[in-house]
Amino acid sequence: MDNHIRPVELEKAYRLLNHGPTVLVSSSHEGTHNVMAAAWACALDFSPPKVTLVIDKMTKTRGLVEKSGYFALQVPNLDQLQMTFDVGTQSKVFTPDKLDKANVDLFRIDGHDSPLVAGCSAWLICKIIPEPHNQQTYDLFIGEVVGAWADNRVFNDGHWEFEKADPKWRSLHYVAGGHFYTIGEPAVVDTGDE
Amino acid sequence: MDNHIRPVELEKAYRLLNHGPTVLVSSSHEGTHNVMAAAWACALDFSPPKVTLVIDKMTKTRGLVEKSGYFALQVPNLDQLQMTFDVGTQSKVFTPDKLDKANVDLFRIDGHDSPLVAGCSAWLICKIIPEPHNQQTYDLFIGEVVGAWADNRVFNDGHWEFEKADPKWRSLHYVAGGHFYTIGEPAVVDTGDE
Repeated sequence: MDNHIRPVELEKAYRLLNHGPTVLVSSSHEGTHNVMAAAWACALDFSPPKVTLVIDKMTKTRGLVEKSGYFALQVPNLDQLQMTFDVGTQSKVFTPDKLDKANVDLFRIDGHDSPLVAGCSAWLICKIIPEPHNQQTYDLFIGEVVGAWADNRVFNDGHWEFEKADPKWRSLHYVAGGHFYTIGEPAVVDTGDE
Repeated sequence: MDNHIRPVELEKAYRLLNHGPTVLVSSSHEGTHNVMAAAWACALDFSPPKVTLVIDKMTKTRGLVEKSGYFALQVPNLDQLQMTFDVGTQSKVFTPDKLDKANVDLFRIDGHDSPLVAGCSAWLICKIIPEPHNQQTYDLFIGEVVGAWADNRVFNDGHWEFEKADPKWRSLHYVAGGHFYTIGEPAVVDTGDE
């Protein structure tokens, strides 16, 4: 494992998604892997941590997630901008070698089968809580986070440190049509604490 | 109505939330209003546009949303940082005058009952699609967007223009403990288009 990857306490896993980054969704079943991009992923609960994720029925990922019962979310960064766009706009249904074309490098973490995308800022492995009505009607999946990790060059002690890290670590926030924003600067309020 | 507020086509309403901003949730029932902050709101569908929103059972907003069948999401900006934190950390259950204390100014748009927070960058009025199992089990609400508007000083022709607007219009992205980031700079990929 990359020696900058550190486990994140499960009760703080929501913080990896709380600021609304676009994520990569990876999945695997019987030797077939896929990775797609998703702007529609969101924290759902603190403890045990849960997330929501929208997965269109047209995607290759949908079948892999349904069959395996797992997906992983990861937070890509500015260094991965083109790859994030490419895996989000190409379908493995039509481009079987899309992962090679997009230069996606997968790895695994001991004790977990989910393939993870190397070079991201954070990873959450999620086990599906079956909700067939949501899945069929809304393409909405609920997952319980069973493991979370982050790269300590950008996330430490439960907090993102975008302002201290190299700008290449900034998270990506997709709008439409190839138009992303990176996350910006800290804004600190008066919390009323002494 | 503020003369900078423009309707957003419903099929582009998802773009108001796609980059993952922290939102304000407003609601009203029989003359009682409330506003809370939420990081756990997300687009769910394009057309008709739908959103997901997590509303804890402990909040005053929960009852207002359930009784009225509506909520509004709005995208606050850096100019509203302290207000966003204050309405997100104080409860109307314990602080009945929290909206006055937080300097929240409400307005309405013709044809809609939902109270909206003045000074935001965008607004989405949502009608609940009743899903009692999700609401009870996960505090998860699904709403269909029935109206969307944005301030044309920061959103035009279906696109955010954070890089052209005064920095006070930057959206807010909450992590935890009074620690927000603002949205940053555009990152544009090679879309492969001629």
